[in-house]
Amino acid sequence: MNIGIVGLGLIGGTYAQNLIENHNVYGIDINNDSLLFAEEYGYITKGFLEPRDILGKCDVVIICLYPNQIYDFVKENEEHFKLNAVLTDASGIKSKLVEEVEEVLRDDLDFVFAHPVAGRETKGVRNSDKLIFSKGNFIITPTKRNKLSSIELIEKLANEIGFLNVNKLSASEHDEIIAYTSQLTHVIALALVNSDEEKYKTELFIGDSYKDLTRIASINSELWGELFFGNKEFLVNKLDHFISYLEKYRDCLVNRDELEMSKLMEEARIRLGRTNES
Amino acid sequence: MNIGIVGLGLIGGTYAQNLIENHNVYGIDINNDSLLFAEEYGYITKGFLEPRDILGKCDVVIICLYPNQIYDFVKENEEHFKLNAVLTDASGIKSKLVEEVEEVLRDDLDFVFAHPVAGRETKGVRNSDKLIFSKGNFIITPTKRNKLSSIELIEKLANEIGFLNVNKLSASEHDEIIAYTSQLTHVIALALVNSDEEKYKTELFIGDSYKDLTRIASINSELWGELFFGNKEFLVNKLDHFISYLEKYRDCLVNRDELEMSKLMEEARIRLGRTNES
Repeated sequence: MNIGIVGLGLIGGTYAQNLIENHNVYGIDINNDSLLFAEEYGYITKGFLEPRDILGKCDVVIICLYPNQIYDFVKENEEHFKLNAVLTDASGIKSKLVEEVEEVLRDDLDFVFAHPVAGRETKGVRNSDKLIFSKGNFIITPTKRNKLSSIELIEKLANEIGFLNVNKLSASEHDEIIAYTSQLTHVIALALVNSDEEKYKTELFIGDSYKDLTRIASINSELWGELFFGNKEFLVNKLDHFISYLEKYRDCLVNRDELEMSKLMEEARIRLGRTNES
Repeated sequence: MNIGIVGLGLIGGTYAQNLIENHNVYGIDINNDSLLFAEEYGYITKGFLEPRDILGKCDVVIICLYPNQIYDFVKENEEHFKLNAVLTDASGIKSKLVEEVEEVLRDDLDFVFAHPVAGRETKGVRNSDKLIFSKGNFIITPTKRNKLSSIELIEKLANEIGFLNVNKLSASEHDEIIAYTSQLTHVIALALVNSDEEKYKTELFIGDSYKDLTRIASINSELWGELFFGNKEFLVNKLDHFISYLEKYRDCLVNRDELEMSKLMEEARIRLGRTNES
Protein backbone atom coordinates (compact mmCIF):
# COMPACT_ATOMS: atom_id res chain seq x y z
CA MET A 1 0.00 0.00 0.00
CA ASN A 2 0.97 3.63 -0.37
CA ILE A 3 0.77 5.24 3.05
CA GLY A 4 1.17 8.95 3.70
CA ILE A 5 2.21 10.14 7.15
CA VAL A 6 1.44 13.77 7.87
CA GLY A 7 3.62 15.23 10.62
CA LEU A 8 6.87 13.34 11.00
CA GLY A 9 7.42 13.83 14.72
CA LEU A 10 7.75 11.32 17.53
CA ILE A 11 4.54 9.44 16.68
CA GLY A 12 4.65 9.94 12.89
CA GLY A 13 8.23 8.69 12.87
CA THR A 14 7.26 5.66 14.92
CA TYR A 15 4.41 4.85 12.50
CA ALA A 16 6.87 5.21 9.61
CA GLN A 17 9.51 2.92 11.11
CA ASN A 18 6.94 0.22 11.69
CA LEU A 19 5.21 0.52 8.31
CA ILE A 20 8.24 0.83 6.01
CA GLU A 21 8.85 -2.92 6.02
CA ASN A 22 5.66 -3.72 4.12
CA HIS A 23 4.58 -0.48 2.46
CA ASN A 24 5.60 2.58 0.50
CA VAL A 25 5.70 5.25 3.17
CA TYR A 26 5.57 8.92 2.22
CA GLY A 27 6.39 11.52 4.85
CA ILE A 28 4.76 14.94 4.71
CA ASP A 29 6.13 17.66 6.97
CA ILE A 30 6.80 21.41 6.92
CA ASN A 31 10.26 20.73 8.35
CA ASN A 32 12.68 19.62 5.66
CA ASP A 33 15.24 18.44 8.22
CA SER A 34 12.78 15.88 9.59
CA LEU A 35 12.11 14.59 6.08
CA LEU A 36 15.81 14.34 5.24
CA PHE A 37 16.54 12.58 8.52
CA ALA A 38 13.72 10.09 7.96
CA GLU A 39 14.85 9.43 4.38
CA GLU A 40 18.46 8.98 5.45
CA TYR A 41 17.56 6.49 8.16
CA GLY A 42 15.17 4.60 5.92
CA TYR A 43 12.04 5.44 7.92
CA ILE A 44 10.24 6.65 4.77
CA THR A 45 10.34 5.97 1.04
CA LYS A 46 10.36 9.69 0.25
CA GLY A 47 9.55 12.98 1.95
CA PHE A 48 7.36 15.85 0.76
CA LEU A 49 7.07 19.45 1.92
CA GLU A 50 3.90 19.97 -0.15
CA PRO A 51 0.99 17.63 0.67
CA ARG A 52 -0.52 18.07 -2.79
CA ASP A 53 2.58 16.53 -4.39
CA ILE A 54 1.88 13.09 -2.90
CA LEU A 55 -1.57 12.87 -1.24
CA GLY A 56 -3.16 11.83 -4.54
CA LYS A 57 -1.18 8.58 -4.44
CA CYS A 58 -1.85 7.64 -0.81
CA ASP A 59 -4.37 4.86 -0.09
CA VAL A 60 -4.07 5.58 3.62
CA VAL A 61 -3.17 8.91 5.22
CA ILE A 62 -2.12 8.91 8.88
CA ILE A 63 -2.37 12.42 10.24
CA CYS A 64 0.01 12.77 13.19
CA LEU A 65 -0.53 16.48 13.81
CA TYR A 66 -1.61 18.18 17.03
CA PRO A 67 -5.40 17.86 17.49
CA ASN A 68 -6.07 21.51 16.60
CA GLN A 69 -4.20 21.21 13.28
CA ILE A 70 -6.07 18.19 11.93
CA TYR A 71 -9.22 20.07 10.90
CA ASP A 72 -7.18 22.66 8.98
CA PHE A 73 -5.12 20.02 7.22
CA VAL A 74 -8.18 18.09 6.05
CA LYS A 75 -9.94 21.25 4.91
CA GLU A 76 -6.94 22.77 3.13
CA ASN A 77 -6.13 19.56 1.30
CA GLU A 78 -9.72 18.55 0.52
CA GLU A 79 -9.10 18.32 -3.21
CA HIS A 80 -5.72 16.57 -2.99
CA PHE A 81 -6.67 13.27 -1.31
CA LYS A 82 -6.89 10.13 -3.44
CA LEU A 83 -10.40 8.93 -4.35
CA ASN A 84 -11.76 6.67 -1.54
CA ALA A 85 -8.68 7.13 0.60
CA VAL A 86 -8.83 6.07 4.25
CA LEU A 87 -7.68 8.74 6.70
CA THR A 88 -6.77 8.23 10.33
CA ASP A 89 -5.16 10.23 13.13
CA ALA A 90 -3.27 9.75 16.40
CA SER A 91 -4.94 12.37 18.56
CA GLY A 92 -5.51 11.85 22.28
CA ILE A 93 -8.91 13.58 22.26
CA LYS A 94 -11.82 12.76 20.00
CA SER A 95 -15.31 14.23 20.58
CA LYS A 96 -14.67 17.77 19.30
CA LEU A 97 -12.29 16.55 16.60
CA VAL A 98 -14.70 14.00 15.09
CA GLU A 99 -17.50 16.52 14.95
CA GLU A 100 -15.40 19.22 13.31
CA VAL A 101 -13.58 17.02 10.81
CA GLU A 102 -16.63 15.13 9.59
CA GLU A 103 -18.20 18.46 8.67
CA VAL A 104 -15.55 19.22 6.04
CA LEU A 105 -14.71 15.68 4.93
CA ARG A 106 -15.11 14.94 1.21
CA ASP A 107 -17.87 12.40 0.67
CA ASP A 108 -15.73 9.59 -0.76
CA LEU A 109 -13.12 9.77 2.03
CA ASP A 110 -13.38 7.63 5.15
CA PHE A 111 -11.79 8.97 8.35
CA VAL A 112 -11.24 6.27 10.98
CA PHE A 113 -10.39 8.18 14.14
CA ALA A 114 -7.81 6.35 16.23
CA HIS A 115 -5.57 6.77 19.25
CA PRO A 116 -2.35 4.85 19.73
CA VAL A 117 -2.08 5.06 23.53
CA ALA A 118 1.69 5.36 23.49
CA GLY A 119 4.33 8.03 23.64
CA ARG A 120 7.50 9.27 25.19
CA GLU A 121 8.45 12.35 27.17
CA THR A 122 10.37 13.58 24.11
CA LYS A 123 9.42 14.90 20.70
CA GLY A 124 10.60 14.86 17.10
CA VAL A 125 11.39 12.19 14.54
CA ARG A 126 14.89 11.73 16.00
CA ASN A 127 13.30 10.38 19.19
CA SER A 128 10.87 8.09 17.39
CA ASP A 129 11.41 4.43 18.13
CA LYS A 130 9.90 1.33 16.58
CA LEU A 131 9.28 -0.11 20.04
CA ILE A 132 7.09 2.73 21.34
CA PHE A 133 4.01 0.91 19.99
CA SER A 134 5.13 -2.56 21.08
CA LYS A 135 2.42 -4.46 22.98
CA GLY A 136 0.50 -1.23 23.56
CA ASN A 137 -3.17 -0.31 23.51
CA PHE A 138 -4.83 1.11 20.39
CA ILE A 139 -8.29 2.67 20.40
CA ILE A 140 -10.56 3.17 17.41
CA THR A 141 -13.60 5.46 17.75
CA PRO A 142 -15.86 4.39 14.88
CA THR A 143 -18.38 6.88 13.52
CA LYS A 144 -21.64 6.29 11.67
CA ARG A 145 -20.05 7.13 8.34
CA ASN A 146 -17.20 4.62 8.67
CA LYS A 147 -17.22 1.63 6.34
CA LEU A 148 -16.54 -1.66 8.07
CA SER A 149 -13.73 -2.35 5.61
CA SER A 150 -11.96 0.89 6.58
CA ILE A 151 -12.19 0.10 10.31
CA GLU A 152 -10.83 -3.38 9.63
CA LEU A 153 -7.98 -1.91 7.62
CA ILE A 154 -6.89 0.41 10.45
CA GLU A 155 -7.31 -2.43 12.93
CA LYS A 156 -5.05 -4.64 10.80
CA LEU A 157 -2.44 -1.89 10.51
CA ALA A 158 -2.50 -1.36 14.31
CA ASN A 159 -1.67 -5.01 14.88
CA GLU A 160 0.94 -4.92 12.14
CA ILE A 161 2.80 -2.06 13.83
CA GLY A 162 2.96 -3.79 17.19
CA PHE A 163 -0.16 -2.97 19.20
CA LEU A 164 -1.47 -5.83 21.33
CA ASN A 165 -4.98 -4.64 22.12
CA VAL A 166 -7.18 -2.89 19.59
CA ASN A 167 -10.46 -1.74 21.06
CA LYS A 168 -13.42 0.32 19.93
CA LEU A 169 -15.15 3.02 21.94
CA SER A 170 -17.41 5.93 21.11
CA ALA A 171 -15.62 9.30 20.95
CA SER A 172 -17.17 10.31 24.26
CA GLU A 173 -16.27 7.03 25.99
CA HIS A 174 -12.73 7.44 24.69
CA ASP A 175 -12.45 10.94 26.08
CA GLU A 176 -13.78 9.87 29.46
CA ILE A 177 -11.42 6.96 30.03
CA ILE A 178 -8.40 8.78 28.56
CA ALA A 179 -9.05 11.77 30.83
CA TYR A 180 -8.36 9.32 33.67
CA THR A 181 -5.58 7.10 32.30
CA SER A 182 -3.60 9.71 30.43
CA GLN A 183 -4.49 13.36 30.98
CA LEU A 184 -4.98 13.05 34.75
CA THR A 185 -1.69 11.17 35.14
CA HIS A 186 0.13 13.97 33.35
CA VAL A 187 -1.48 16.67 35.51
CA ILE A 188 -0.44 14.66 38.59
CA ALA A 189 3.18 14.41 37.44
CA LEU A 190 3.25 18.14 36.69
CA ALA A 191 1.67 19.16 40.00
CA LEU A 192 4.04 16.87 41.92
CA VAL A 193 7.07 18.56 40.37
CA ASN A 194 5.50 22.01 40.81
CA SER A 195 4.92 21.31 44.49
CA ASP A 196 8.61 20.68 45.16
CA GLU A 197 9.57 23.37 47.65
CA GLU A 198 13.25 23.01 46.70
CA LYS A 199 14.40 23.33 50.30
CA TYR A 200 16.68 20.34 49.69
CA LYS A 201 18.57 18.98 46.69
CA THR A 202 15.65 16.75 45.76
CA GLU A 203 17.68 14.52 43.42
CA LEU A 204 19.77 13.24 46.35
CA PHE A 205 16.77 11.98 48.27
CA ILE A 206 14.62 10.23 45.67
CA GLY A 207 14.02 6.57 44.94
CA ASP A 208 12.36 4.90 41.97
CA SER A 209 8.86 5.96 43.00
CA TYR A 210 9.62 9.65 42.55
CA LYS A 211 11.40 9.00 39.26
CA ASP A 212 8.46 6.97 37.96
CA LEU A 213 5.88 9.56 38.95
CA THR A 214 7.70 12.54 37.48
CA ARG A 215 9.23 11.16 34.27
CA ILE A 216 6.27 12.34 32.20
CA ALA A 217 6.31 15.84 33.71
CA SER A 218 8.92 16.84 31.15
CA ILE A 219 6.06 17.59 28.88
CA ASN A 220 5.48 18.96 25.41
CA SER A 221 3.38 21.78 26.83
CA GLU A 222 1.89 22.89 23.52
CA LEU A 223 0.50 19.44 22.75
CA TRP A 224 -0.64 18.69 26.30
CA GLY A 225 -2.23 22.09 26.74
CA GLU A 226 -4.41 21.26 23.72
CA LEU A 227 -5.24 17.84 25.13
CA PHE A 228 -6.11 19.21 28.59
CA PHE A 229 -8.31 22.05 27.31
CA GLY A 230 -9.80 19.86 24.56
CA ASN A 231 -11.03 17.40 27.18
CA LYS A 232 -11.76 19.91 29.89
CA GLU A 233 -15.06 18.58 31.30
CA PHE A 234 -13.93 14.99 31.74
CA LEU A 235 -10.53 16.03 33.04
CA VAL A 236 -11.95 18.38 35.69
CA ASN A 237 -14.29 15.60 36.73
CA LYS A 238 -11.49 13.01 37.07
CA LEU A 239 -9.28 15.54 38.83
CA ASP A 240 -11.99 16.27 41.40
CA HIS A 241 -12.55 12.56 41.96
CA PHE A 242 -8.81 12.00 42.45
CA ILE A 243 -8.55 14.94 44.86
CA SER A 244 -11.46 13.51 46.87
CA TYR A 245 -9.40 10.33 47.42
CA LEU A 246 -6.30 12.32 48.38
CA GLU A 247 -8.50 14.02 50.94
CA LYS A 248 -9.70 10.68 52.27
CA TYR A 249 -6.06 9.75 52.94
CA ARG A 250 -5.53 13.20 54.47
CA ASP A 251 -8.53 12.72 56.76
CA CYS A 252 -7.29 9.29 57.85
CA LEU A 253 -3.94 10.83 58.77
CA VAL A 254 -5.39 13.77 60.65
CA ASN A 255 -7.93 11.62 62.51
CA ARG A 256 -5.43 8.77 63.00
CA ASP A 257 -7.96 6.43 61.42
CA GLU A 258 -5.70 3.46 60.76
CA LEU A 259 -8.59 1.12 59.99
CA GLU A 260 -10.02 3.31 57.22
CA MET A 261 -6.53 3.91 55.80
CA SER A 262 -5.79 0.21 55.57
CA LYS A 263 -9.19 -0.32 53.93
CA LEU A 264 -8.31 2.26 51.27
CA MET A 265 -4.91 0.68 50.69
CA GLU A 266 -6.43 -2.78 50.43
CA GLU A 267 -9.01 -1.52 47.91
CA ALA A 268 -6.18 -0.09 45.79
CA ARG A 269 -4.24 -3.34 45.97
CA ILE A 270 -7.23 -5.40 44.86
CA ARG A 271 -8.15 -2.90 42.15
CA LEU A 272 -4.59 -2.87 40.79
CA GLY A 273 -4.51 -6.66 40.87
CA ARG A 274 -7.61 -6.74 38.67
CA THR A 275 -5.90 -4.40 36.17
CA ASN A 276 -2.66 -6.37 36.10
CA GLU A 277 -4.21 -9.80 35.84
CA SER A 278 -6.52 -9.18 32.94
CA MET B 1 33.63 -8.19 59.59
CA ASN B 2 30.82 -10.10 61.24
CA ILE B 3 27.56 -8.48 60.21
CA GLY B 4 24.16 -9.40 61.63
CA ILE B 5 21.04 -8.64 59.61
CA VAL B 6 17.84 -8.57 61.64
CA GLY B 7 14.73 -9.18 59.53
CA LEU B 8 15.52 -11.04 56.34
CA GLY B 9 12.87 -9.56 54.06
CA LEU B 10 13.16 -7.62 50.82
CA ILE B 11 15.63 -5.06 52.21
CA GLY B 12 17.44 -7.36 54.66
CA GLY B 13 17.93 -9.89 51.88
CA THR B 14 19.29 -7.20 49.57
CA TYR B 15 21.76 -6.07 52.24
CA ALA B 16 22.81 -9.70 52.70
CA GLN B 17 23.35 -10.37 48.99
CA ASN B 18 25.57 -7.31 48.70
CA LEU B 19 27.56 -7.89 51.89
CA ILE B 20 28.21 -11.63 51.63
CA GLU B 21 31.12 -11.13 49.20
CA ASN B 22 33.34 -9.45 51.79
CA HIS B 23 31.90 -10.34 55.20
CA ASN B 24 30.46 -13.03 57.41
CA VAL B 25 26.75 -12.32 57.23
CA TYR B 26 24.41 -13.71 59.89
CA GLY B 27 20.68 -13.58 59.26
CA ILE B 28 18.26 -13.24 62.18
CA ASP B 29 14.57 -13.81 61.53
CA ILE B 30 11.52 -15.31 63.22
CA ASN B 31 10.71 -17.09 59.96
CA ASN B 32 12.81 -20.22 59.52
CA ASP B 33 11.86 -20.55 55.84
CA SER B 34 13.45 -17.18 55.07
CA LEU B 35 16.64 -18.24 56.84
CA LEU B 36 16.80 -21.57 55.03
CA PHE B 37 16.16 -19.91 51.67
CA ALA B 38 18.88 -17.30 52.31
CA GLU B 39 21.34 -20.01 53.40
CA GLU B 40 20.54 -22.17 50.39
CA TYR B 41 21.07 -19.31 47.94
CA GLY B 42 24.22 -18.17 49.66
CA TYR B 43 22.86 -14.79 50.78
CA ILE B 44 24.02 -15.43 54.36
CA THR B 45 26.73 -17.37 56.13
CA LYS B 46 24.25 -18.77 58.65
CA GLY B 47 20.73 -18.08 59.90
CA PHE B 48 19.49 -17.73 63.49
CA LEU B 49 16.00 -17.79 64.96
CA GLU B 50 17.27 -16.54 68.33
CA PRO B 51 19.06 -13.19 68.28
CA ARG B 52 20.99 -14.00 71.47
CA ASP B 53 22.69 -16.95 69.73
CA ILE B 54 24.65 -14.67 67.38
CA LEU B 55 24.36 -10.97 68.32
CA GLY B 56 27.37 -11.26 70.65
CA LYS B 57 29.60 -11.93 67.65
CA CYS B 58 28.30 -9.14 65.36
CA ASP B 59 30.47 -6.02 64.91
CA VAL B 60 27.68 -4.41 62.92
CA VAL B 61 23.94 -5.10 63.26
CA ILE B 62 21.64 -3.92 60.47
CA ILE B 63 18.07 -3.89 61.74
CA CYS B 64 15.71 -4.24 58.77
CA LEU B 65 12.48 -4.44 60.76
CA TYR B 66 9.40 -2.25 60.43
CA PRO B 67 9.94 1.10 62.20
CA ASN B 68 7.65 0.20 65.12
CA GLN B 69 9.57 -3.03 65.85
CA ILE B 70 13.04 -1.50 66.09
CA TYR B 71 12.62 -0.06 69.60
CA ASP B 72 11.39 -3.41 70.95
CA PHE B 73 14.22 -5.33 69.32
CA VAL B 74 16.89 -3.04 70.76
CA LYS B 75 15.30 -3.10 74.20
CA GLU B 76 14.72 -6.85 74.33
CA ASN B 77 18.22 -7.66 73.17
CA GLU B 78 20.00 -4.99 75.19
CA GLU B 79 22.30 -7.48 76.92
CA HIS B 80 23.05 -9.59 73.83
CA PHE B 81 24.84 -7.06 71.60
CA LYS B 82 28.64 -7.25 71.28
CA LEU B 83 30.63 -4.64 73.22
CA ASN B 84 30.98 -1.42 71.14
CA ALA B 85 28.90 -2.83 68.29
CA VAL B 86 27.61 -0.42 65.63
CA LEU B 87 23.88 -0.68 64.96
CA THR B 88 22.00 0.74 61.99
CA ASP B 89 18.52 0.49 60.48
CA ALA B 90 16.70 0.91 57.16
CA SER B 91 13.60 2.74 58.29
CA GLY B 92 11.91 5.37 56.14
CA ILE B 93 11.04 7.62 59.11
CA LYS B 94 13.47 8.91 61.70
CA SER B 95 12.46 11.61 64.23
CA LYS B 96 10.33 9.48 66.55
CA LEU B 97 12.53 6.43 66.10
CA VAL B 98 15.79 8.17 66.99
CA GLU B 99 14.27 9.66 70.12
CA GLU B 100 12.79 6.37 71.35
CA VAL B 101 15.75 4.14 70.56
CA GLU B 102 18.42 6.39 72.03
CA GLU B 103 16.54 6.25 75.33
CA VAL B 104 17.09 2.50 75.72
CA LEU B 105 20.44 2.13 73.97
CA ARG B 106 23.28 0.59 76.00
CA ASP B 107 26.03 3.14 76.57
CA ASP B 108 28.77 1.38 74.62
CA LEU B 109 26.61 0.80 71.53
CA ASP B 110 26.50 3.30 68.66
CA PHE B 111 23.33 3.45 66.55
CA VAL B 112 23.84 5.15 63.17
CA PHE B 113 20.34 5.72 61.84
CA ALA B 114 20.18 5.30 58.09
CA HIS B 115 17.73 5.08 55.20
CA PRO B 116 18.51 3.28 51.96
CA VAL B 117 16.05 5.10 49.66
CA ALA B 118 15.29 2.01 47.63
CA GLY B 119 12.70 -0.70 47.44
CA ARG B 120 10.31 -2.68 45.32
CA GLU B 121 6.56 -3.14 45.28
CA THR B 122 7.10 -6.66 46.63
CA LYS B 123 8.20 -8.13 49.93
CA GLY B 124 10.17 -11.04 51.35
CA VAL B 125 13.70 -12.38 50.94
CA ARG B 126 12.68 -14.23 47.76
CA ASN B 127 12.12 -10.87 46.05
CA SER B 128 15.35 -9.33 47.31
CA ASP B 129 17.75 -8.42 44.54
CA LYS B 130 21.34 -7.26 44.66
CA LEU B 131 20.55 -4.49 42.17
CA ILE B 132 17.85 -2.78 44.27
CA PHE B 133 20.55 -0.62 45.89
CA SER B 134 22.51 0.00 42.69
CA LYS B 135 23.28 3.70 42.11
CA GLY B 136 20.66 4.70 44.68
CA ASN B 137 20.50 7.34 47.38
CA PHE B 138 21.45 6.58 50.98
CA ILE B 139 20.72 8.93 53.87
CA ILE B 140 22.43 8.94 57.27
CA THR B 141 20.86 10.95 60.10
CA PRO B 142 23.73 11.45 62.56
CA THR B 143 22.93 12.04 66.23
CA LYS B 144 24.95 13.78 68.92
CA ARG B 145 26.01 10.46 70.42
CA ASN B 146 27.41 9.02 67.16
CA LYS B 147 31.15 8.55 66.92
CA LEU B 148 32.65 9.83 63.68
CA SER B 149 34.23 6.41 63.11
CA SER B 150 30.80 4.71 63.26
CA ILE B 151 29.29 7.14 60.77
CA GLU B 152 32.25 6.59 58.47
CA LEU B 153 31.84 2.84 58.77
CA ILE B 154 28.17 2.93 57.72
CA GLU B 155 29.04 5.37 54.93
CA LYS B 156 31.70 2.98 53.65
CA LEU B 157 29.30 0.03 53.80
CA ALA B 158 26.65 2.03 51.87
CA ASN B 159 29.10 2.65 49.04
CA GLU B 160 30.27 -0.95 49.17
CA ILE B 161 26.72 -2.25 48.62
CA GLY B 162 26.08 -0.09 45.58
CA PHE B 163 24.71 3.28 46.70
CA LEU B 164 25.93 6.22 44.64
CA ASN B 165 25.03 9.14 46.90
CA VAL B 166 25.45 9.03 50.67
CA ASN B 167 24.15 12.17 52.35
CA LYS B 168 23.62 13.34 55.89
CA LEU B 169 20.55 15.12 57.19
CA SER B 170 19.07 15.70 60.61
CA ALA B 171 16.21 13.33 61.49
CA SER B 172 13.70 16.14 61.00
CA GLU B 173 15.15 17.22 57.64
CA HIS B 174 15.07 13.58 56.56
CA ASP B 175 11.42 13.22 57.49
CA GLU B 176 10.48 16.41 55.68
CA ILE B 177 12.12 15.60 52.35
CA ILE B 178 11.08 11.93 52.45
CA ALA B 179 7.47 12.92 53.12
CA TYR B 180 7.63 14.57 49.69
CA THR B 181 9.79 12.20 47.63
CA SER B 182 8.52 8.92 49.01
CA GLN B 183 5.44 8.97 51.21
CA LEU B 184 3.53 11.52 49.10
CA THR B 185 4.30 9.60 45.89
CA HIS B 186 2.86 6.44 47.42
CA VAL B 187 -0.31 8.22 48.57
CA ILE B 188 -0.69 9.61 45.04
CA ALA B 189 -0.34 6.17 43.45
CA LEU B 190 -2.89 4.73 45.90
CA ALA B 191 -5.41 7.54 45.43
CA LEU B 192 -5.07 7.31 41.64
CA VAL B 193 -5.95 3.62 41.70
CA ASN B 194 -8.72 4.20 44.27
CA SER B 195 -10.25 6.87 42.04
CA ASP B 196 -10.69 4.46 39.12
CA GLU B 197 -14.44 4.39 38.56
CA GLU B 198 -14.15 1.03 36.75
CA LYS B 199 -16.68 2.01 34.11
CA TYR B 200 -14.29 0.62 31.50
CA LYS B 201 -11.71 -2.16 31.44
CA THR B 202 -8.96 0.23 32.47
CA GLU B 203 -6.12 -2.08 31.46
CA LEU B 204 -7.13 -1.82 27.78
CA PHE B 205 -6.82 1.94 27.71
CA ILE B 206 -3.60 2.68 29.56
CA GLY B 207 -0.17 3.70 28.33
CA ASP B 208 3.16 3.85 30.12
CA SER B 209 2.23 6.91 32.16
CA TYR B 210 -0.55 5.10 34.03
CA LYS B 211 1.66 2.05 34.56
CA ASP B 212 4.47 4.19 35.93
CA LEU B 213 2.21 6.10 38.29
CA THR B 214 0.44 3.09 39.72
CA ARG B 215 3.20 0.45 39.95
CA ILE B 216 3.92 1.37 43.58
CA ALA B 217 0.25 1.27 44.59
CA SER B 218 0.57 -2.48 45.11
CA ILE B 219 1.73 -1.64 48.55
CA ASN B 220 2.79 -3.45 51.69
CA SER B 221 0.01 -1.74 53.65
CA GLU B 222 1.29 -2.66 57.10
CA LEU B 223 4.71 -1.08 56.47
CA TRP B 224 3.39 1.96 54.62
CA GLY B 225 0.66 2.60 57.18
CA GLU B 226 3.42 2.87 59.79
CA LEU B 227 5.43 5.19 57.57
CA PHE B 228 2.44 7.42 56.79
CA PHE B 229 1.26 7.73 60.40
CA GLY B 230 4.83 7.97 61.71
CA ASN B 231 5.42 11.04 59.54
CA LYS B 232 1.94 12.46 59.73
CA GLU B 233 2.66 16.18 60.11
CA PHE B 234 5.09 16.48 57.23
CA LEU B 235 2.99 14.21 55.01
CA VAL B 236 -0.22 16.19 55.58
CA ASN B 237 1.73 19.34 54.82
CA LYS B 238 3.16 17.98 51.55
CA LEU B 239 -0.21 16.54 50.59
CA ASP B 240 -1.89 19.91 51.06
CA HIS B 241 0.79 21.63 49.04
CA PHE B 242 0.41 19.08 46.23
CA ILE B 243 -3.40 19.43 46.26
CA SER B 244 -3.00 23.22 46.01
CA TYR B 245 -1.12 22.71 42.73
CA LEU B 246 -3.71 20.27 41.42
CA GLU B 247 -6.26 22.97 42.14
CA LYS B 248 -4.21 25.52 40.21
CA TYR B 249 -4.41 23.25 37.16
CA ARG B 250 -8.11 22.78 37.83
CA ASP B 251 -8.66 26.55 37.98
CA CYS B 252 -6.75 27.03 34.73
CA LEU B 253 -9.02 24.49 33.05
CA VAL B 254 -12.26 25.91 34.41
CA ASN B 255 -11.24 29.50 33.62
CA ARG B 256 -9.65 28.52 30.28
CA ASP B 257 -6.49 30.28 31.41
CA GLU B 258 -4.07 28.87 28.84
CA LEU B 259 -1.32 31.34 29.72
CA GLU B 260 -1.22 30.41 33.41
CA MET B 261 -1.39 26.69 32.55
CA SER B 262 1.58 26.93 30.19
CA LYS B 263 3.48 28.87 32.87
CA LEU B 264 2.87 26.04 35.34
CA MET B 265 3.94 23.42 32.81
CA GLU B 266 7.07 25.39 31.95
CA GLU B 267 7.94 25.71 35.66
CA ALA B 268 7.63 21.94 36.04
CA ARG B 269 9.80 21.32 32.98
CA ILE B 270 12.56 23.62 34.26
CA ARG B 271 12.31 22.21 37.81
CA LEU B 272 12.55 18.64 36.53
CA GLY B 273 15.50 19.60 34.35
CA ARG B 274 17.32 20.85 37.45
CA THR B 275 16.68 17.54 39.22
CA ASN B 276 17.79 15.42 36.29
CA GLU B 277 20.90 17.40 35.42
CA SER B 278 22.48 17.52 38.84
